[in-house]
Amino acid sequence: MESWKTAVSYSDEDQIWIRGEAMTDLMAKASFTEVVFLLHQGRLPSANERKLLDAILVAVCDHGPGSPSAATSRLVASANRQSPEAAIAAGVLSIGDMHAGAGLACMEMIEAGLNMAHRESIEIAEAAKRIVTDYIQRKQRLPGLGHRVHLEDPRTPLLFGMARESGLPGEGIEFITAVQSVARDLIKPLPINVDGALAAVLHDLGFPPLFAKFVFIIGRVAGLTAQVSEEYTRERPMRIKIPVQYDGIQPNGNNGQH
Amino acid sequence: MESWKTAVSYSDEDQIWIRGEAMTDLMAKASFTEVVFLLHQGRLPSANERKLLDAILVAVCDHGPGSPSAATSRLVASANRQSPEAAIAAGVLSIGDMHAGAGLACMEMIEAGLNMAHRESIEIAEAAKRIVTDYIQRKQRLPGLGHRVHLEDPRTPLLFGMARESGLPGEGIEFITAVQSVARDLIKPLPINVDGALAAVLHDLGFPPLFAKFVFIIGRVAGLTAQVSEEYTRERPMRIKIPVQYDGIQPNGNNGQH
Amino acid sequence: MESWKTAVSYSDEDQIWIRGEAMTDLMAKASFTEVVFLLHQGRLPSANERKLLDAILVAVCDHGPGSPSAATSRLVASANRQSPEAAIAAGVLSIGDMHAGAGLACMEMIEAGLNMAHRESIEIAEAAKRIVTDYIQRKQRLPGLGHRVHLEDPRTPLLFGMARESGLPGEGIEFITAVQSVARDLIKPLPINVDGALAAVLHDLGFPPLFAKFVFIIGRVAGLTAQVSEEYTRERPMRIKIPVQYDGIQPNGNNGQH
Amino acid sequence: MESWKTAVSYSDEDQIWIRGEAMTDLMAKASFTEVVFLLHQGRLPSANERKLLDAILVAVCDHGPGSPSAATSRLVASANRQSPEAAIAAGVLSIGDMHAGAGLACMEMIEAGLNMAHRESIEIAEAAKRIVTDYIQRKQRLPGLGHRVHLEDPRTPLLFGMARESGLPGEGIEFITAVQSVARDLIKPLPINVDGALAAVLHDLGFPPLFAKFVFIIGRVAGLTAQVSEEYTRERPMRIKIPVQYDGIQPNGNNGQH
Repeated sequence: MESWKTAVSYSDEDQIWIRGEAMTDLMAKASFTEVVFLLHQGRLPSANERKLLDAILVAVCDHGPGSPSAATSRLVASANRQSPEAAIAAGVLSIGDMHAGAGLACMEMIEAGLNMAHRESIEIAEAAKRIVTDYIQRKQRLPGLGHRVHLEDPRTPLLFGMARESGLPGEGIEFITAVQSVARDLIKPLPINVDGALAAVLHDLGFPPLFAKFVFIIGRVAGLTAQVSEEYTRERPMRIKIPVQYDGIQPNGNNGQH
Repeated sequence: MESWKTAVSYSDEDQIWIRGEAMTDLMAKASFTEVVFLLHQGRLPSANERKLLDAILVAVCDHGPGSPSAATSRLVASANRQSPEAAIAAGVLSIGDMHAGAGLACMEMIEAGLNMAHRESIEIAEAAKRIVTDYIQRKQRLPGLGHRVHLEDPRTPLLFGMARESGLPGEGIEFITAVQSVARDLIKPLPINVDGALAAVLHDLGFPPLFAKFVFIIGRVAGLTAQVSEEYTRERPMRIKIPVQYDGIQPNGNNGQH
Repeated sequence: MESWKTAVSYSDEDQIWIRGEAMTDLMAKASFTEVVFLLHQGRLPSANERKLLDAILVAVCDHGPGSPSAATSRLVASANRQSPEAAIAAGVLSIGDMHAGAGLACMEMIEAGLNMAHRESIEIAEAAKRIVTDYIQRKQRLPGLGHRVHLEDPRTPLLFGMARESGLPGEGIEFITAVQSVARDLIKPLPINVDGALAAVLHDLGFPPLFAKFVFIIGRVAGLTAQVSEEYTRERPMRIKIPVQYDGIQPNGNNGQH
Repeated sequence: MESWKTAVSYSDEDQIWIRGEAMTDLMAKASFTEVVFLLHQGRLPSANERKLLDAILVAVCDHGPGSPSAATSRLVASANRQSPEAAIAAGVLSIGDMHAGAGLACMEMIEAGLNMAHRESIEIAEAAKRIVTDYIQRKQRLPGLGHRVHLEDPRTPLLFGMARESGLPGEGIEFITAVQSVARDLIKPLPINVDGALAAVLHDLGFPPLFAKFVFIIGRVAGLTAQVSEEYTRERPMRIKIPVQYDGIQPNGNNGQH
């Protein structure tokens, strides 16, 4: 079998090397968040970049046991007491298109919009207008905008404020803000939600769209470990009873409510 | 269905609360590693505690594409290009008893040894001697000691040095060092490997044994995201060919080599 | 990399061979259940063996959406609409020690008891007595006996009746029945539940204990596919709301009910 | 929490009901394959339908340890010896778009083509021509056609022969055969591979496209259990070494081969 090639890391007898940095040097001087940045970008972040990535990882780390990922992990933990890795992995599997998928979709929209602006030498506002119009025509929801409870997500102004203070390039934030402005005119007032905020900031930090999903997984796994710990220590096995109502074929062959 | 109880976190319309701390406060002031500590211990760590937990998360974050977790994630990524969460989850599933299980087993040994020392009012060295003797009688390997390549793991002295400087209580480190000393007399010289080192330090930081598995999962998931990213961007789908040799029943019904 | 050795199957340009049988022959003449038997035992089953394995696969195929495996699959399906494999895999992950683990534990008990009887040339009844006494002393529950709703599981007499008609060797059934009889005297009357019944029959069919877990997974995956199909076709995404009650640290730092 | 509604199954104190059939009746009279059909279609199949579904489940059950799903399961089994469910689930996660995704894509193409034929009252051959032309214009590969080793898959004529003998409606087979014929004229001669064959037959059996993925998972899980069994019984833990070659940033900061 051919060797697998990698530019991420390698190890020899004395050391593990991450993107050319010695593991022991990283352990002594770098935070975990800096190493997450290093793993994906091949360089350590500046202090401002590190603060933004920390804020994003923290923003997604937990949302209570009722969120789909935590509920899945706890349900598996309740039935499988000897395999905590199975409970964590099951929670990760719920992080698909519906649960936290908007960040990835929003980064793709931002990238498409900014590529269009640069390629066609048009204003970001004009690119945002074309993108929103296209979404309206295809009857698709704009990713990163809107909220179930109709209030502004408090994480959005915080992230944007931190980004402003840190002096990032900011085309991502500029574009999503332009999208929000166009949407206000063509659809209705919609807040930028946390998916939209982190998508814009991650774009401005230089990450590709897929990293929106990865940053959510890395951050959320921390919360899942706390949820599974609590399930193991506070609850008895097999405690979770889902109430069920049958409305299919009856034993006598008739359809109807059981 | 009864409500699920939790003391980890909750959210209302305006805020998410993690162990009583407002999410936006944490985003503004805390690092991700501090929040990992908060999620599991219910308080933010001191600067020294934070540095040790950072060092441990970094220590386990990646070990190249050939480690079981990364190889599993890349194999799934090669076959399933549209579901990165499936690739990450599959890698997590390989983190069982053999791959990174020694940290958990070592924390359980440390806890058992120190409980014995406190309960029976004996010296830590004496408790270590009884524990090692028991492992020898049951013909079990001592978790956290020994290394495949027979050299000292460079991460061990670094972690122990950082712990000493930070002035942690240190009974975990004292115990594993006593175990190593007894093992030298009764078995042979064995280095404390990284699993043993992180088990001792995590014990001294106040974490329960299960956290040894969780800290490995949290740290390693970061590496897995980088491995899957690289698989998607550098390799073509379905590239991985495992060489196979059949030695079972032959079509004519005879056993033998194919 | 060294080749991976296998005696299960291999393929060449013209054919896939399963335990020496040509895939196209199997497709033309064998049922799926017969091939499950072939994969694990290296020969096709007799008609009676096939009927028993069919009955066991059917017995475990589904138990409604509220069982832990189905609930997990549906929860993931609700959040991840584009990756049905993730939903099925998550359900499989709940099949641990508590959910369907009793079959494996019971097969191990049967194997241990019969090995003891043969090794020490004692009656099966005597071996059962020693095993039950040992479980009582270790304060462990007997796997395969007892039921939450205290009634006899209708699947048990059916399986035992089918086994009797088919003229299987029957030491597994003899042993579990002896265990039940000893338990009646030393503990209380306990029905043999479906885990105990399938463990005994699988033993008599020549399968090792691990197959109790595998047969449950193979059978249940069929049910999970139907549950996930129904979730996708009848329900809207992200519909599942778990009710949550917080009882941890309050924002002001006080403990207490929220 | 609202009850979860289901028309698949329910249980009461005495019985489990699958689509209105008593579990004990099914165990006594039905094969597992018949119950797979029942779970998805709400009725038991005819003998001919059962034979075709058996042939398809058998056709996909195993392809040796080198196939992505089996290789993933064995890699996890090598590292995680105490959680066989984790090994099986990891294998399932590799069944994405690239590995066995063609069956689902082909069923969607067949459904789209036949819907077009019925809606626009055109010949199946004409619908096939439009579909193929569309794929060519979008530069997409036709799912279900073509083969890596350029020979005809022996499973295709077998399945089509069995379908013909059983007198199925056959529009699925008619359509894929028409697609093959158009492709011969407009592209090049391409065999119908096993994904195309099972897609056509499953369509003719009345299953929706998603079932192509499910039938592959149900069948393949049987093979995965045999692969994991063999890994546990024949191999030592952590045996699998993936050869790795590093080509990233060097410790001194230079790019280049290590």
